[in-house]
Amino acid sequence: MIEYRNLRVALLGAGSVGAQVVAQLQKHGDELASRVGAGLELVGVAVRDIDAPRTAEIPRELLTTDAESLILGADIVIELIGGIEPARTLIMQALTSGADVVTANKALIATHGPELFAMAEQVGAQLYYEAAVAGAIPIIRPLRDSLAGDHVQRILGIVNGTTNFILDRMDTEGQSLEDALATATELGYAEADPTADIEAYDAAQKAAILASLAFHTTVPIESVYREGITAITAAQVEAARSAGYVIKLLAICERVTDAEGIDGVSARVYPALVPRTHPLAAVHGAKNAVFVEAEAAGDLMFYGAGAGGIETASAVLGDLVSAARRHVVGGPGVAESTNSDLPILPIGSVTTRYHITLLVNDRTGVLATIAALFSDHGVSVETVVQTVGAPSDDGTPAPATLVIGTHEASEAALAATVTALSSIDTVRSVTSVLRVEGS
Amino acid sequence: MIEYRNLRVALLGAGSVGAQVVAQLQKHGDELASRVGAGLELVGVAVRDIDAPRTAEIPRELLTTDAESLILGADIVIELIGGIEPARTLIMQALTSGADVVTANKALIATHGPELFAMAEQVGAQLYYEAAVAGAIPIIRPLRDSLAGDHVQRILGIVNGTTNFILDRMDTEGQSLEDALATATELGYAEADPTADIEAYDAAQKAAILASLAFHTTVPIESVYREGITAITAAQVEAARSAGYVIKLLAICERVTDAEGIDGVSARVYPALVPRTHPLAAVHGAKNAVFVEAEAAGDLMFYGAGAGGIETASAVLGDLVSAARRHVVGGPGVAESTNSDLPILPIGSVTTRYHITLLVNDRTGVLATIAALFSDHGVSVETVVQTVGAPSDDGTPAPATLVIGTHEASEAALAATVTALSSIDTVRSVTSVLRVEGS
Repeated sequence: MIEYRNLRVALLGAGSVGAQVVAQLQKHGDELASRVGAGLELVGVAVRDIDAPRTAEIPRELLTTDAESLILGADIVIELIGGIEPARTLIMQALTSGADVVTANKALIATHGPELFAMAEQVGAQLYYEAAVAGAIPIIRPLRDSLAGDHVQRILGIVNGTTNFILDRMDTEGQSLEDALATATELGYAEADPTADIEAYDAAQKAAILASLAFHTTVPIESVYREGITAITAAQVEAARSAGYVIKLLAICERVTDAEGIDGVSARVYPALVPRTHPLAAVHGAKNAVFVEAEAAGDLMFYGAGAGGIETASAVLGDLVSAARRHVVGGPGVAESTNSDLPILPIGSVTTRYHITLLVNDRTGVLATIAALFSDHGVSVETVVQTVGAPSDDGTPAPATLVIGTHEASEAALAATVTALSSIDTVRSVTSVLRVEGS
Repeated sequence: MIEYRNLRVALLGAGSVGAQVVAQLQKHGDELASRVGAGLELVGVAVRDIDAPRTAEIPRELLTTDAESLILGADIVIELIGGIEPARTLIMQALTSGADVVTANKALIATHGPELFAMAEQVGAQLYYEAAVAGAIPIIRPLRDSLAGDHVQRILGIVNGTTNFILDRMDTEGQSLEDALATATELGYAEADPTADIEAYDAAQKAAILASLAFHTTVPIESVYREGITAITAAQVEAARSAGYVIKLLAICERVTDAEGIDGVSARVYPALVPRTHPLAAVHGAKNAVFVEAEAAGDLMFYGAGAGGIETASAVLGDLVSAARRHVVGGPGVAESTNSDLPILPIGSVTTRYHITLLVNDRTGVLATIAALFSDHGVSVETVVQTVGAPSDDGTPAPATLVIGTHEASEAALAATVTALSSIDTVRSVTSVLRVEGS
């Protein structure tokens, strides 16, 4: 094992995301170290109460209630406390001490972002917040970097999983808002007090962050127009369906020109009718998606999990690696770390599912013969669909078409099966072999 | 206007992407300068033939046939020549001279990536290639940075627009492969010689790049298993449809364990059956999408335009801004440049379309009254759907439901219209006001 110098990482907060960050660091620490070119040493986890039940998974020697001392010894501070205070003061202390900061705190970025970014710039530190919007979906970095040479015209975002789950249930199951909310609560998609979600305070914070980033300006949270979903009725959802629409809670950030010809930006959140043909209409359950319309790039969409402990931890750890690479090389880091020693396996080693279409003589026992042949080659049959054609004019029986769907099998086994099929009498031809992916 | 020091940018190649890079730099140069903190001065465009017709849009004084001299004076070199030579030699020269390089050259990255990355690392320069895979879609940066703390399990990519267009036509229009290819050629989605696309050489290069990046290893192009779409028949497409699938050409990069228990990676390209419920099944026409399955993040999808001059230019310019920011601050750059002076406009300034549902007394002339009211408030009606209920038991006529769809109108005009509607006799109630977005 290669020895690296260690970067000292302090974690503030040990909720569901924090616990996953610790778990992933323990599981993949060596791999991350090789990607960064330095070890990532978790030097401590600051919590309010060391004996709280949710800290049980974290090694006890890492726990401390003294966040301020922990910060002083850290190269990188991860803030997962949430809310405004003490998160704001602790992040300011971390930046002041020269540490880079990674946060998932949307409320804080939406309300105190400019102050925090100014401090980071002043001291030459970086503040990363990919996890603050749309959980695991990379959207901050694409907007900040990938689209930095483009001109974003509009963003339509489904950025709150709870309300998307509720509206999706109303649409697909015909539930009332109350019933859909009850289901969401039961399944853990809604909190005991769902106000922040259903009244769209959460989505409004994300709209403020996205608009600020997309338009290179500061959009204060107070200027985001906000309507929640509480007034949406089953009748509206049904009427929308009949008219070819689905109702989605959208965070909208847009360049607009007002009646006096003044160019400006608008950030707003409300339930809206979205045409069923629009890519956002296909975003179901608690998933999030951000649809971006840019002058040169055209339409882009970023889709994935918008919340969840382990999903959000992915975004936090991505930021942690970015921050760590910056410490190591003083730049964006080694772009192409080829430090994995995974061999490249040939196609024969790959397993997938197959649909094989055969033209066979429609005789008694043909299916048994063919099934035995698959079995002999270690390929398990999942489905068989047989279609018999009309006999020809001279009375010759028509061949039957068999479509055989397999369970997972290796390419090697499948190839051997197909070769064997081609050589038996009852099979007139193998007309199609296709792999099934994405199931 | 603020004066910045200039970074010298050299462009190699002036095809459809290059011409758009020049146009965008001319159009948005000041805006990009404010995002970077330095001017981006295009010092020259190297072409093979100064009098070629496609260079006509580029200012003549920028054109040169001497790429080597142009490179020597540049801070950042953009390579859009394509192919292996002279692109490879010129990029090596640029890196050796200390310039950062931006390229859209998938063939070169797939075949000579390791050599180029090694040179960049040796001299401390950066090599950016977001435009090499999936055109305008940010996928390189998300894989390299956002998912750097995660463990990618599998990538399923629709990364070739030509073949997706052809397969989509076969699926939606029932066309044969030949006819769909002819349509693609006619509409400019396929080149005169479509071999690189339909035989999946193009997709295989992208698979090699994505697999190398996702698995932190080097996957040579020769190790990518490749099948094109030329054997796909209308009958197969139809059979797939009946079975609930759609055929897509997929670039698949996967962590696999072979029969001997050896962990490795597989990169392969072939037409596969994709369940119609999978997000990739909804990727139509020449669009691209990359579906990523990661251990912590779960399923992510990145969707957008995979080709096109202006779309690909967006990715090139994003890389250019990243490279330029690095020159200015020696790091990933100022994350939050709030240098735009766009005002934040109130919701009243926003225009959108609306669906307004009214319960009205079903009397002669009610529609005329309501239409006049909309018109008086400057709101143009696009559609009216009227539903009349059954009369009640005592013979009272039932109220009618009117759903009025409007053209674009301002929130202010709409609000005034709704207030006025509520105050007239024939309107019993305004039961729903919803905005239409994403159309």
